[in-house]
Amino acid sequence: MSSSASIKRVAFQGEPGAFSEEAAIQLLGKETGTVPCRTFEALFSSVADDIADYALAPIENSLAGSVHKSYDLLLESHLQVIRETILPVSHNLIGIHGAALEDIETVESHPVALAQCEKFFRTHPQILRVPALDTAGSVREIVLARDLSRGAIAGKRAAEIYGGKILLEHIEDHKENYTRFLLLAASPEPRDDADKLSLVVHLEHKAGALQRALDVFAQRGISLLKIESRPIAGHPWEYRFYLDLQTSLNDREAVRALEELRSCTSDIRVLGSYPSYKTGTRQP
Amino acid sequence: MSSSASIKRVAFQGEPGAFSEEAAIQLLGKETGTVPCRTFEALFSSVADDIADYALAPIENSLAGSVHKSYDLLLESHLQVIRETILPVSHNLIGIHGAALEDIETVESHPVALAQCEKFFRTHPQILRVPALDTAGSVREIVLARDLSRGAIAGKRAAEIYGGKILLEHIEDHKENYTRFLLLAASPEPRDDADKLSLVVHLEHKAGALQRALDVFAQRGISLLKIESRPIAGHPWEYRFYLDLQTSLNDREAVRALEELRSCTSDIRVLGSYPSYKTGTRQP
Repeated sequence: MSSSASIKRVAFQGEPGAFSEEAAIQLLGKETGTVPCRTFEALFSSVADDIADYALAPIENSLAGSVHKSYDLLLESHLQVIRETILPVSHNLIGIHGAALEDIETVESHPVALAQCEKFFRTHPQILRVPALDTAGSVREIVLARDLSRGAIAGKRAAEIYGGKILLEHIEDHKENYTRFLLLAASPEPRDDADKLSLVVHLEHKAGALQRALDVFAQRGISLLKIESRPIAGHPWEYRFYLDLQTSLNDREAVRALEELRSCTSDIRVLGSYPSYKTGTRQP
Repeated sequence: MSSSASIKRVAFQGEPGAFSEEAAIQLLGKETGTVPCRTFEALFSSVADDIADYALAPIENSLAGSVHKSYDLLLESHLQVIRETILPVSHNLIGIHGAALEDIETVESHPVALAQCEKFFRTHPQILRVPALDTAGSVREIVLARDLSRGAIAGKRAAEIYGGKILLEHIEDHKENYTRFLLLAASPEPRDDADKLSLVVHLEHKAGALQRALDVFAQRGISLLKIESRPIAGHPWEYRFYLDLQTSLNDREAVRALEELRSCTSDIRVLGSYPSYKTGTRQP
């Protein structure tokens, strides 16, 4: 990132108080300006629209899996991955002030958050789950409605921002719940400590094409960290593959592997060469 | 499937009129008994609970991608894949009788259906999208509410069943919109025309493990049709891989490949060896 003294703005999807905003602050520090975007589309166009210097997109949750919308929009945009960060996710049952657990009849939140609290709903079968567009936004809604019977599931920060009351902490089924985010910028920012390479490739619909493509890296001892397949609109049952590899463009072997891959397919794009997340890292 | 003359019951997720019910009838014929299940969990336990002989689960949409809930529950269940079918998906804007397009202020449906009609919402920015648990269920809700301003997005069958009025046809963004379903049974039903093999494998968290596993099939000229990775709860950034291969247990090379794979990992399970979908096939 540039060493300019001006405050950098990072866009995130969701309402103020969203997990994504927490992740942005964790990665870039409190002095960063956070810009809420209502939709993923707005998030991915925020840099081109000059409402932010960076965009922080959730890409994968350790329980729910990949965030497909981010994968799809990353491809459509011209953004480059320059960093990643990992945020522990913990869900809270939030009501309005004056409410007790016994008052709650409905609980609203993003469907992924609802799904991550199955045990809570199983032990409280009288409570109806209501899908909402957003975790933090659902807290704002119940606080505005001033209805003792309405609860929401979100992070602590959302309760603080909107003045909700935490009725139960840690209601997520699994404690090992993390979300990985990618920091995106208009252009690559090469770094000496880059050790992760993300790319997307569209292979021919031919027997063994994927096996051969992966072999290009395996032969050079480059480890595959993640593979994600996404459908291609208009071409049913053909896929685009997103690969995360334990290497970077600083590694000559990786550059040669990419050259070899380009000779098999024209449809390949490097999404980023960047340092992987290490616990406790902050600020570029 | 057994040749018993009794009517077979097939469970599907959703309300009567759901796309899944259409797929069940397409695959097994009109004389089949269709059993609606409110949740995916109920669907996957329907056979063990003896409320159905088969379960039909959506596994993949050609635009939205894999249905992760189905992949996850398939693994937890002891069900075997015995068939597959592919249904073209077309969305309609449905209102109550007496309503016109101009009356509609909110449109409710399953989030995936809402997302597949982006162009419609972009050209009608005054209409608010409301997430619901179900496409067909959202039609039932608006018909029960008798509210001219409420619309729903669902298939034609849902409009017929609940007495809704189709205000606009084919509002999906992409015409090439298909969903693939798996027919699941308590035990395998070996067939001579099986040509597709589905399995799930948990590989060691070691460099090149996936490349080596795929090589077992590539060496034998067995083509990989699909690969899907899913996270493993409690083991962040480790994955389970679901593979669809163009072969079957009738093929000796496939059996040998599985043996070789078992020597590298103990955690491998065959989900099914079954005939792939061919246009126009119906009834076993």
